[in-house]
Amino acid sequence: MIVSVVAGNPKPASRTLTAAGLLATSLTGSAPDHVIDVVELGAGLLNWSNASVSHAVDTVAGSDLVVFASPTFKATYTGLLKLFLDHFSTGDGLQDVTAVPLMLGAGPAHYLAPELLLKPVLVELGATVPAAGLYIVDKLHDDAEAFAPWIDRWGSIVLSSASTPVTAGD
Amino acid sequence: MIVSVVAGNPKPASRTLTAAGLLATSLTGSAPDHVIDVVELGAGLLNWSNASVSHAVDTVAGSDLVVFASPTFKATYTGLLKLFLDHFSTGDGLQDVTAVPLMLGAGPAHYLAPELLLKPVLVELGATVPAAGLYIVDKLHDDAEAFAPWIDRWGSIVLSSASTPVTAGD
Amino acid sequence: MIVSVVAGNPKPASRTLTAAGLLATSLTGSAPDHVIDVVELGAGLLNWSNASVSHAVDTVAGSDLVVFASPTFKATYTGLLKLFLDHFSTGDGLQDVTAVPLMLGAGPAHYLAPELLLKPVLVELGATVPAAGLYIVDKLHDDAEAFAPWIDRWGSIVLSSASTPVTAGD
Amino acid sequence: MIVSVVAGNPKPASRTLTAAGLLATSLTGSAPDHVIDVVELGAGLLNWSNASVSHAVDTVAGSDLVVFASPTFKATYTGLLKLFLDHFSTGDGLQDVTAVPLMLGAGPAHYLAPELLLKPVLVELGATVPAAGLYIVDKLHDDAEAFAPWIDRWGSIVLSSASTPVTAGD
Repeated sequence: MIVSVVAGNPKPASRTLTAAGLLATSLTGSAPDHVIDVVELGAGLLNWSNASVSHAVDTVAGSDLVVFASPTFKATYTGLLKLFLDHFSTGDGLQDVTAVPLMLGAGPAHYLAPELLLKPVLVELGATVPAAGLYIVDKLHDDAEAFAPWIDRWGSIVLSSASTPVTAGD
Repeated sequence: MIVSVVAGNPKPASRTLTAAGLLATSLTGSAPDHVIDVVELGAGLLNWSNASVSHAVDTVAGSDLVVFASPTFKATYTGLLKLFLDHFSTGDGLQDVTAVPLMLGAGPAHYLAPELLLKPVLVELGATVPAAGLYIVDKLHDDAEAFAPWIDRWGSIVLSSASTPVTAGD
Repeated sequence: MIVSVVAGNPKPASRTLTAAGLLATSLTGSAPDHVIDVVELGAGLLNWSNASVSHAVDTVAGSDLVVFASPTFKATYTGLLKLFLDHFSTGDGLQDVTAVPLMLGAGPAHYLAPELLLKPVLVELGATVPAAGLYIVDKLHDDAEAFAPWIDRWGSIVLSSASTPVTAGD
Repeated sequence: MIVSVVAGNPKPASRTLTAAGLLATSLTGSAPDHVIDVVELGAGLLNWSNASVSHAVDTVAGSDLVVFASPTFKATYTGLLKLFLDHFSTGDGLQDVTAVPLMLGAGPAHYLAPELLLKPVLVELGATVPAAGLYIVDKLHDDAEAFAPWIDRWGSIVLSSASTPVTAGD
């Protein structure tokens, strides 16, 4: 199983990235194969034929399981993450990828954002998103205990989805 | 696999009910085991300890795969469907159920409603909802062709989810 | 200015109703003219030509300012409130009404629900909804301090909207 | 009344920009005072202390009426527009601004996106958004007839909001 994490925080090596990596590791038992810190793609994100961005898109699209993580900006995901997602093909850019929407925020008020706002974008890209979106309070970004209830509840469902062989018809 | 359909149209034996049954049948190859036409539960829906409503809730909660269908009223699902869903336990009322959100409407304008509005309610109840929400234009409610692209795209994912044995930990 | 409050809590004389009344009173300086405790309409809500429901709909539609209040059930407004709203005419059922979406919940997690979920229904009915949706934690339902920041921020905008004379063209 | 338009299309001088300008002009009877074609800000958008971006933010924040326009990418607004909006201050970055959410798309399927997805971001920034979000099919981007029903219905409400003097308390 190829596992990637994508973090869309304008600050490199952010808490968001740490949280995404921790979630992937807790889910699968090993570190993710690929880590995309979107901000590192820089101005190439504004260019629709940039090699680094295309490579990152291909890496994500070729994964079995991807955690998409964002801090909460203006009550939703960041423009930076969406700018990256806009490079994927609509409908099938994430086909055969099982995706997990993860958002972090200063307090609990934006708890609904990953489910109501980030998940639908991933579904529009064709991802299979079988679990509830996960929201984690910033200061708990590296606290495995904060992720444990979600993993207990949804982990086996996510892993089962990510390891389902793609049928010929797909 | 136990399969149910739930339709929340104030008109009994509605196009919504027909569409939900057609979707379930197209997915699984046989008619659904249980059909809940919510309006038939009548005033019991306003009572929080009504035997018929409790029985319907238990039937749905004990299913492996459930199509939840609603016409579009005021750009979202009906109050009637939500009134029924309010009888389920939050978080685990639909645990171990794979759910499909289906909405019908007069025209294409409300296409986003099943994904953005109906799906999150089912997830809040604990359902596994691995596929994109489906929106069908009313007049195609009994036209299997209208459902075919969604079934080709998401059918095997839904069936795989519905037939995954529940692990001890769940 | 004719002011009404509508509360969609299955429990009569609920905290939701109290909160809605407090908000209306704090906004305008006097008690609302009309109070609709939706649950009191009973089984008539399931009937599409019930005189009591029609009268309540007309009262609300004829108001200048209406607070629509709901507890949070399954991460959104109640089926009971939506069942009542389904009786209004789409597009113009609340035309010339300034509406305020208010939701209460046990904790802060569902803070986004009035803005993301309840407001769009009111807009679909044609209401003018110029302010952010308001979310109040249950236990503060009768604490005017909990409402004060929202009223300071949005009160004059809401009142200005509600007191704008309807132009001939409308 | 100071009127601005903001268009978040990765293509400069896009249909989106044309549509936003047409809407502003139709609403007010004259061309907008300021036109922000977000893509022209280029890589400065990825920098959190860029003078051109700050100037654009100040221009928008100092307007009375702003049309925020986006094409539909992945069933919602573009990352480019959100990247610009992320530069505003949460809660009051658009205080005292009356905003109109406008989205364009190839077909009618994403009609709900401006109301459900773009409007809440503007409200989170503190804008007053009294009208329903507007969705226009791409090919009608410069057809005043396509905008007329919305302007007839919501124009006077928007103008009234934009011309309301800000009270001392705000």
